[in-house]
Amino acid sequence: MKISARNRLKGTVVDVTKGATTAHVRIDVGGSVVTASITNEAVDELQLKVGDSAYAVVKASDVMVAVD
Amino acid sequence: MKISARNRLKGTVVDVTKGATTAHVRIDVGGSVVTASITNEAVDELQLKVGDSAYAVVKASDVMVAVD
Amino acid sequence: MKISARNRLKGTVVDVTKGATTAHVRIDVGGSVVTASITNEAVDELQLKVGDSAYAVVKASDVMVAVD
Amino acid sequence: MKISARNRLKGTVVDVTKGATTAHVRIDVGGSVVTASITNEAVDELQLKVGDSAYAVVKASDVMVAVD
Amino acid sequence: MKISARNRLKGTVVDVTKGATTAHVRIDVGGSVVTASITNEAVDELQLKVGDSAYAVVKASDVMVAVD
Amino acid sequence: MKISARNRLKGTVVDVTKGATTAHVRIDVGGSVVTASITNEAVDELQLKVGDSAYAVVKASDVMVAVD
Repeated sequence: MKISARNRLKGTVVDVTKGATTAHVRIDVGGSVVTASITNEAVDELQLKVGDSAYAVVKASDVMVAVD
Repeated sequence: MKISARNRLKGTVVDVTKGATTAHVRIDVGGSVVTASITNEAVDELQLKVGDSAYAVVKASDVMVAVD
Repeated sequence: MKISARNRLKGTVVDVTKGATTAHVRIDVGGSVVTASITNEAVDELQLKVGDSAYAVVKASDVMVAVD
Repeated sequence: MKISARNRLKGTVVDVTKGATTAHVRIDVGGSVVTASITNEAVDELQLKVGDSAYAVVKASDVMVAVD
Repeated sequence: MKISARNRLKGTVVDVTKGATTAHVRIDVGGSVVTASITNEAVDELQLKVGDSAYAVVKASDVMVAVD
Repeated sequence: MKISARNRLKGTVVDVTKGATTAHVRIDVGGSVVTASITNEAVDELQLKVGDSAYAVVKASDVMVAVD
């Protein structure tokens, strides 16, 4: 499946924490850690676990820009 | 200002394209290019231009995870 | 690629309208038309055109619920 | 109230699962099930329960497009 | 229609600017101006114009928190 | 840090409720209460507590418009 989302950052899963309904998945992308808040069901379906290769995917309209 | 958004990726602006109301800003983050779709007004207010240091900022609930 | 987004509605592209930077793509999903606002670049990369099979994909945290 | 969100898919609530703060509501929309991640408070305020008629509502800028 | 979105701020439309596909609508909410980026079609359907009463509506998962 | 997000509403924190992974923070903004759904980690990092001055920050593309 090819998706319109412009941003796909490849990395390695470094943490998976499930909550009651919402999980936090952390992906190391070239030294920066990206946090994703997704459903527990998605974690199960993708069988995400520490050490897996994975992409952090973000739609362009969800990216902001900041400057110091 | 400190913000709750979990993801702040530091990089360099490599492209700024304004549309009629919506601009696309591309930031090179350690070799990956992140595209942000923001308002033209934000581009003006932050005076974004190619070569600037900038952060791509994303709320954790806007990050998805994908696997091959 | 498998993605964490919970909602993938299969349908047929019925309209593609490019703007200056942002395109609107309409997908008929079983009689309902879903509108996606995506970048022109994504339209080009996926070569989207009327009549194509396509999915409308939405992260669960971007879905609201309404009642009459 | 009329809202600007382009996508309003009518269906029937088939599951309501509350977490600690975040609930998942599933709506059958013509045979496809759409998952919404909303606050527990919204579930209470709308008194959502299985069997109710409801709409899944999504802003166009939150819809992505994918192709096989 | 009642919607799950937690945030509905009542105000007055002070600007409507249409782009090629995306419009910016500004709503004065008790002295603060809120900018909404919505489709031109939504502007037409709601017949939004300067001076109208309107609500800025935001899902809780799209609100960040910042401190000085 | 200056951010591209168009909407920064200043107010006072009136409630902080942590869930298993997701917290709800309520900010009184000139008499209206805005609810933000953010990670527990962000609450800890910003040390948010009732009575603090804080901003509710929203990207323009996440704001919808409604009329009665």
